[in-house]
Amino acid sequence: MIRTEYTVNTGDTAEFNNHVDDCVGTGRMGLALQKEYHDQLKIVQDEIGFGHIRGHGLFSDDMAIYQAYADENGEEKVEYNFTYLDRVMDDYISLGLRPFLELGFMPEKLASGTQTIFYWKGNTTPPKSDEGWTSLVIATLAHLIERYGAEEVTDWPIEVWNEPNLAGFWKDADMPAYFHLFEITFRAIKAFEPRFKVGGPAVCGGTDEKWIRAFLEFCREKKLQPDFITRHHYTINTPENIGHYRYNRLVEPKSGIAQLHTTRVIIDSFPEFAGKKIMITEFNTSYTPQSPLHDTNMNAAHIAAQLSMLGNDNASYSYWTFGDVFEESGVPFTPFYGGFGLVTNGLVKKPTFYTFKFFKRLKGQCVHRSDESVICKKQGGYNGVIWNLQMEDERERAEISFKLPADKQDYCLAVWTVDEVSGNPLKTWHDIGEPSSPSAEQLQLMRESAVPAVSTIRLSAKEYKVTFSLELAPNAVAYFELLPAEIRSDRGYDYERAVNKNG
Amino acid sequence: MIRTEYTVNTGDTAEFNNHVDDCVGTGRMGLALQKEYHDQLKIVQDEIGFGHIRGHGLFSDDMAIYQAYADENGEEKVEYNFTYLDRVMDDYISLGLRPFLELGFMPEKLASGTQTIFYWKGNTTPPKSDEGWTSLVIATLAHLIERYGAEEVTDWPIEVWNEPNLAGFWKDADMPAYFHLFEITFRAIKAFEPRFKVGGPAVCGGTDEKWIRAFLEFCREKKLQPDFITRHHYTINTPENIGHYRYNRLVEPKSGIAQLHTTRVIIDSFPEFAGKKIMITEFNTSYTPQSPLHDTNMNAAHIAAQLSMLGNDNASYSYWTFGDVFEESGVPFTPFYGGFGLVTNGLVKKPTFYTFKFFKRLKGQCVHRSDESVICKKQGGYNGVIWNLQMEDERERAEISFKLPADKQDYCLAVWTVDEVSGNPLKTWHDIGEPSSPSAEQLQLMRESAVPAVSTIRLSAKEYKVTFSLELAPNAVAYFELLPAEIRSDRGYDYERAVNKNG
Amino acid sequence: MIRTEYTVNTGDTAEFNNHVDDCVGTGRMGLALQKEYHDQLKIVQDEIGFGHIRGHGLFSDDMAIYQAYADENGEEKVEYNFTYLDRVMDDYISLGLRPFLELGFMPEKLASGTQTIFYWKGNTTPPKSDEGWTSLVIATLAHLIERYGAEEVTDWPIEVWNEPNLAGFWKDADMPAYFHLFEITFRAIKAFEPRFKVGGPAVCGGTDEKWIRAFLEFCREKKLQPDFITRHHYTINTPENIGHYRYNRLVEPKSGIAQLHTTRVIIDSFPEFAGKKIMITEFNTSYTPQSPLHDTNMNAAHIAAQLSMLGNDNASYSYWTFGDVFEESGVPFTPFYGGFGLVTNGLVKKPTFYTFKFFKRLKGQCVHRSDESVICKKQGGYNGVIWNLQMEDERERAEISFKLPADKQDYCLAVWTVDEVSGNPLKTWHDIGEPSSPSAEQLQLMRESAVPAVSTIRLSAKEYKVTFSLELAPNAVAYFELLPAEIRSDRGYDYERAVNKNG
Amino acid sequence: MIRTEYTVNTGDTAEFNNHVDDCVGTGRMGLALQKEYHDQLKIVQDEIGFGHIRGHGLFSDDMAIYQAYADENGEEKVEYNFTYLDRVMDDYISLGLRPFLELGFMPEKLASGTQTIFYWKGNTTPPKSDEGWTSLVIATLAHLIERYGAEEVTDWPIEVWNEPNLAGFWKDADMPAYFHLFEITFRAIKAFEPRFKVGGPAVCGGTDEKWIRAFLEFCREKKLQPDFITRHHYTINTPENIGHYRYNRLVEPKSGIAQLHTTRVIIDSFPEFAGKKIMITEFNTSYTPQSPLHDTNMNAAHIAAQLSMLGNDNASYSYWTFGDVFEESGVPFTPFYGGFGLVTNGLVKKPTFYTFKFFKRLKGQCVHRSDESVICKKQGGYNGVIWNLQMEDERERAEISFKLPADKQDYCLAVWTVDEVSGNPLKTWHDIGEPSSPSAEQLQLMRESAVPAVSTIRLSAKEYKVTFSLELAPNAVAYFELLPAEIRSDRGYDYERAVNKNG
Repeated sequence: MIRTEYTVNTGDTAEFNNHVDDCVGTGRMGLALQKEYHDQLKIVQDEIGFGHIRGHGLFSDDMAIYQAYADENGEEKVEYNFTYLDRVMDDYISLGLRPFLELGFMPEKLASGTQTIFYWKGNTTPPKSDEGWTSLVIATLAHLIERYGAEEVTDWPIEVWNEPNLAGFWKDADMPAYFHLFEITFRAIKAFEPRFKVGGPAVCGGTDEKWIRAFLEFCREKKLQPDFITRHHYTINTPENIGHYRYNRLVEPKSGIAQLHTTRVIIDSFPEFAGKKIMITEFNTSYTPQSPLHDTNMNAAHIAAQLSMLGNDNASYSYWTFGDVFEESGVPFTPFYGGFGLVTNGLVKKPTFYTFKFFKRLKGQCVHRSDESVICKKQGGYNGVIWNLQMEDERERAEISFKLPADKQDYCLAVWTVDEVSGNPLKTWHDIGEPSSPSAEQLQLMRESAVPAVSTIRLSAKEYKVTFSLELAPNAVAYFELLPAEIRSDRGYDYERAVNKNG
Repeated sequence: MIRTEYTVNTGDTAEFNNHVDDCVGTGRMGLALQKEYHDQLKIVQDEIGFGHIRGHGLFSDDMAIYQAYADENGEEKVEYNFTYLDRVMDDYISLGLRPFLELGFMPEKLASGTQTIFYWKGNTTPPKSDEGWTSLVIATLAHLIERYGAEEVTDWPIEVWNEPNLAGFWKDADMPAYFHLFEITFRAIKAFEPRFKVGGPAVCGGTDEKWIRAFLEFCREKKLQPDFITRHHYTINTPENIGHYRYNRLVEPKSGIAQLHTTRVIIDSFPEFAGKKIMITEFNTSYTPQSPLHDTNMNAAHIAAQLSMLGNDNASYSYWTFGDVFEESGVPFTPFYGGFGLVTNGLVKKPTFYTFKFFKRLKGQCVHRSDESVICKKQGGYNGVIWNLQMEDERERAEISFKLPADKQDYCLAVWTVDEVSGNPLKTWHDIGEPSSPSAEQLQLMRESAVPAVSTIRLSAKEYKVTFSLELAPNAVAYFELLPAEIRSDRGYDYERAVNKNG
Repeated sequence: MIRTEYTVNTGDTAEFNNHVDDCVGTGRMGLALQKEYHDQLKIVQDEIGFGHIRGHGLFSDDMAIYQAYADENGEEKVEYNFTYLDRVMDDYISLGLRPFLELGFMPEKLASGTQTIFYWKGNTTPPKSDEGWTSLVIATLAHLIERYGAEEVTDWPIEVWNEPNLAGFWKDADMPAYFHLFEITFRAIKAFEPRFKVGGPAVCGGTDEKWIRAFLEFCREKKLQPDFITRHHYTINTPENIGHYRYNRLVEPKSGIAQLHTTRVIIDSFPEFAGKKIMITEFNTSYTPQSPLHDTNMNAAHIAAQLSMLGNDNASYSYWTFGDVFEESGVPFTPFYGGFGLVTNGLVKKPTFYTFKFFKRLKGQCVHRSDESVICKKQGGYNGVIWNLQMEDERERAEISFKLPADKQDYCLAVWTVDEVSGNPLKTWHDIGEPSSPSAEQLQLMRESAVPAVSTIRLSAKEYKVTFSLELAPNAVAYFELLPAEIRSDRGYDYERAVNKNG
Repeated sequence: MIRTEYTVNTGDTAEFNNHVDDCVGTGRMGLALQKEYHDQLKIVQDEIGFGHIRGHGLFSDDMAIYQAYADENGEEKVEYNFTYLDRVMDDYISLGLRPFLELGFMPEKLASGTQTIFYWKGNTTPPKSDEGWTSLVIATLAHLIERYGAEEVTDWPIEVWNEPNLAGFWKDADMPAYFHLFEITFRAIKAFEPRFKVGGPAVCGGTDEKWIRAFLEFCREKKLQPDFITRHHYTINTPENIGHYRYNRLVEPKSGIAQLHTTRVIIDSFPEFAGKKIMITEFNTSYTPQSPLHDTNMNAAHIAAQLSMLGNDNASYSYWTFGDVFEESGVPFTPFYGGFGLVTNGLVKKPTFYTFKFFKRLKGQCVHRSDESVICKKQGGYNGVIWNLQMEDERERAEISFKLPADKQDYCLAVWTVDEVSGNPLKTWHDIGEPSSPSAEQLQLMRESAVPAVSTIRLSAKEYKVTFSLELAPNAVAYFELLPAEIRSDRGYDYERAVNKNG
């Protein structure tokens, strides 16, 4: 058992920037037409509530926006079809979300090549015509403005392409070609409507020196002022593939956070760009789908540690992804296939769902932050998140004790805990035989087992301090509220007698 | 710790008649117009699902059926208003319920006296005119048949009055007056439509020799053949009143069941009536509302014991009542006021809710019944309910072990447990200060704490037997399913590695 | 046929104050616990959307707030029960409504006498103790503030009693007693929380000179500054009673409006009170329930005329009542019983429902108002309400023509019409035999017949004017929108060919 | 005006087989994952309620069932993924539907060639391996049985492939190759589970002599006894293409019905197959999507004529398709794009929706059928559908009069009419400018204009006959109910006074 004690004194504060709900990731936009996708997203929005949503495939052919045809003279003409785009955007808006628009991938008929990525075959080659590309971008934005109003739409962030530093995502990882794409896109959008916010370069992690610095130099040279800088962030070593699955090794949360700080330092080294907002447009533990890790308590605890620190340098960090409707590596065979999502196919909440829910519930001024806890002051009391990340094979329980300033006498401490016993439907699914097609009864059982344990306890302050300990199993994550709770019994009501006496 | 072990052998069966869902009780019919009433009943029906519903007040003035007025010549005329009756019946039917019609109490303008009962003032005097009463009864039944069809309506059981053996419910507890009422009502209904089933005498417990026997003698003499015999059943000693509340002492479940058996014996002693169906039209632990006992785990465990035995002699036993919208002693001041209901005002499920849900889930042939358990065989496996009733001040935990016949190798045991820690919102409400007007957040917390703990474990059969132990806290009630569960892992999926290894 | 033509010129404006949605009336507060009440109110709020709701019975005994009991020494003590109040307020707030609090009637145990009003027996006598009364008022307001916050609750208008100038509503219509009640209540509330807005005297119409003037003189003398003045407004002559029903004769809308203006004049004649807000806390055509008039098209047209003028002098006018759950004259026998409501029991919308819906939809600056029409400019087009009130036995159709300024070429005129043929479920109910207990199929038919006829037509502007005529059956009410509508056909689409040619 | 009169005498009956709700068509199965698809289907099921649903693409790659991969030795292995299949089937079942399984098209990795059909690229070549194909079929059926039970699943009809007589749907329209596919599939299914019902040859119309006869000869020779014979049925001449759209010329309904009768005659000429069930697994007016005709009143009237006759020879006729989520010719650009559906994208009901709803409502014994009407006797009254099909440029109104036997005195005739004025949202959409991306307000207006006009009238019988006339605009379709409706007014209620008098 690891034992830790913390004392918070009156007036203490701690730094903690909570942007947990700014943005969330999604499988390709064409999947947003699906009912299961909507149902998963609705659960996420009802209980967590993100502000923006970002994913690939806005211009991929299943969205059917770019339509080329031969006119009566055999000449190629282009028209745009916004039927599916409207449907997706309407749905997002009805769920309280705004899109974070990632411009990509390439419609087949506008592409310069045939290279594709993923099971769903997103074309990752530059446009065959710059003008065709910018026309497509502007026509799309113009349509969105006509439908939703400029006030609203210019508030949707725009990012140019995805991970161009990887040859899979952008032919040959051709940096000049990407910078050119960024430039023409950026200039076209700003010329059309300067209120739009446009950023890049959307690179994956580990390429700060090479890509981020080069991008900023390019912008400086071309006198482009991007509205924000984007990159991604994952925290595993190279995975091992077995059958449909990938097994990853997690690194320490802090090492990832340190790596992110490099980006901040590089940006701030440019006087033109110092202080510019960084938006992590993707993050998670593993970057591979079909990674069983995603469904575990360890994932939940690791993300808790990350969420306590990601706001240090970044204005946004978008968990990749909200749900398990996802096809990059093909269609999943089972409900617990190690997808990125917070919710499985079949609408079962994973442990990491609650990590987000807990951080979203945090309100008030931070008074304490440590490696395994964050506490904020609110409404005459406190709320906090604690976790016990255990990555090694030998795993220990933890007991964390707090002594907090109190100006009332009587308190109730309510604790919501997700650990290997409670809120862990992966175990339930395993125990019932790992069914690929669970029955309605099995799904119901999994959903019932996917809720945190809730407990309450009464506490009394002593000398203006209230003290309590919380015990966490390995990789548990818990949320607590400590609120004043004077007992005001109704006339004649005697709880102790009711509960402990027969008569 | 109390330790018990049971072995079931192949081919074993046990007697157990499960009529848990035949009927449930309700506050007076006028309350069925309320939205909170509907919302509570909907929860009960969605998760438990009773077949019938029975309560007082069909003819009380808030149902507005009986309307007397003076015509142009000043003569009293009567007309019937079925607006509210239709509304209530439509709602019951939409919730999958059929009424168990209790004929009573007396409309003020048809009453022979002014005696009333309850905060809501039900008139408990005989009719001033026999003909006025039977006309009212027949007009009501005729209206129901016109609206819902004779096939349907004649299937609704009918009971004449409520607890006429108590002076509060029937002026002077006048036995001949009641028998007369029964006779005229019975004859009028059967003359109108012989398919109706009519029963009585709806007495409270403890009066078998006096009232049940006399009633049967009266029926024999008058050549009346009632379709079933009704009585009530409560299991407490005299309560102590303090402020708004009453504190009761529970008696052993078995002593109550023994007392019920007397009724069976008396009926069977009449050759004309031997074997006639007994319907317990009310039962609970305490017969008083505002009885804090009702909200406790002890209540849940006591009712579990009762539900395992009530089918011994009785075809129906109607828990008094499904919900906490109830006004007999006035309007409750708090959500946990010790009401009879399975659900509180504010839609929080009490422990006893789950006792009913658990027994309702029991399917298949009983293979074992003991003082603290019932097990049935189904779908190649088993399901059961177990409980640990502890009524004394010193309370013990129990460990119950079962060895059951098995024809498969791999099983999953799933257990749903309600005890002082899980599924016990009364404690939560107390811990937050016993608020009379809980906020939305407080209600949410109470609802979250009102769910059973769910756990699963994998088991392997040995020599065609599967063995397991369940530990129960004092007054815990649990439901389990033991079902075959061979593991069929997807290609490459390794649960142990995913959960226990980093990478 | 009555023919009328109007021309509106560029820049024309007309006076029209649209407070249609400020407030609506309701049957007594205890009825707000009912499901049917909630369902009717939900329809009204979903489609019309009022801001406040006002009705009687806050302190009547079915709300159970005032509870007196004898303590151990036999002394009368008082406690308050807010269970039902919370339930009602929560429901109002969930439907987007704020209460307009009418303080009354008297709890039986606080009353000085036994006089009651209505089938539901509201006690209409002064308090037996001034202090008991003000304590009740302040305890209630304090509770509301604790539950909903002072910011919110002090925004709820408060009115002292109802129609004290009628002996039925206030014992002996005792003016000094009412003024005393007003004074102690007003002073107590302001002392407790000065932000509350308190008004009176809530008199019925026709008593301006006597009561309004006296009330203002009293306030001047006592140096009370009420926040607003309240009165009621109905527009019929004395009804004739037959069986359960009352038949009324409507007066001209303008004569009613003229009468209301008197109140304005009297108030403005007091320098201390000049310009003070007038709130009509009840209005309708007939003041009697069971008045078949309420369900008719004539009622809808009359209310349309009123709604076009009621804002002339008044800041609020609360239609009495939103729905037909109402018991002042007893429980209705049929769904179309002439209740005050916009929606019947059984959730069928009456013609007057649409009068409100149409006025609520009116947006923009008024450019034209006449005896049978109001037109406002919005979004490059117009919207308007027109009606054809015909009160005499001989009834005529009307054709109303408009010529409006246009800055576009192509328009679409959409018209929603409620008349004797469309949106008139009373006729449907009559045609199917006036059933008191309609079946589900009959209700469905009634609901399907309770929708306006919708039509569209394309119009072209000529010389910057667009011209059109609308024909109205007697007592029809219609809403129209005239909006720019250029045709942008998809490539190859030919509507005329599709519709008018075979192939 | 065309005037027609019909007299029905007591005891008259007419032949009319109403299988309107047996089955409906759908776009490819992969689209069934979409939310808009579900929402459209839910409307159709809620208001019409079909029994089965049939469409293409069960085995197409977007359903992801057939998965080939290389094992560690580089050998191709096959596994099946039922994730999407389960999702679609669960949704159908939740909507009260059973699938009519069409086996096709070919998974790319199982295909012998690369020929595809449609925008969505269904592979239409034979399997590269017979065994691979039958294994896929049997694995799919076995999975469905495991999930839904053999009792249920063997009740789902199975059809082998689609329109193999067209070279687009089946490479080279190779008849021997299809017959071979049919034989191996049929034999494999029957060997697996003989209770399955399997049919073919699923040909389009106009090929009875060639394909139906050859198919039956083949079956006779091979001693195959198919459970039913399937074909398709459309009623237009060759369309003209303009831009995205096709314009078709409708033929007379009767000529189509006559052509269908040929199939019956051919089948019955084989003694082995005489009387065998014919299932029309697709029918509509035009066989092309993007056919504006589908959205018109003429389509609705033509389908009405068809529905009155299709039961003459056929046990099932499946309208192609229930909704407008459909991609065979690409993604639609506008909501009224001439799709096959009964409901548009955006959930607006087309006129033909009501043709189906009206025929579905028809209950009882047919007493009259003519070229423009069907009448059935029910519940002491009648219900009927009438239409006025007008295909030429000059179109006439029709007045149809009926004299029907009556055993009551008073009746109410209720009529629901869809014509160019009511229930015609295509006109509304045109009038507002044919928007491709309608706003929420525009959609609301379209939906409000997509309801039938409802009217009621009271009728009195004379000499045991009730007589009435209905007037229909060109291409109107109407449903009526004529039911007994004695007036039972409440005490004092006078409808005429309420409606026609002021006071």
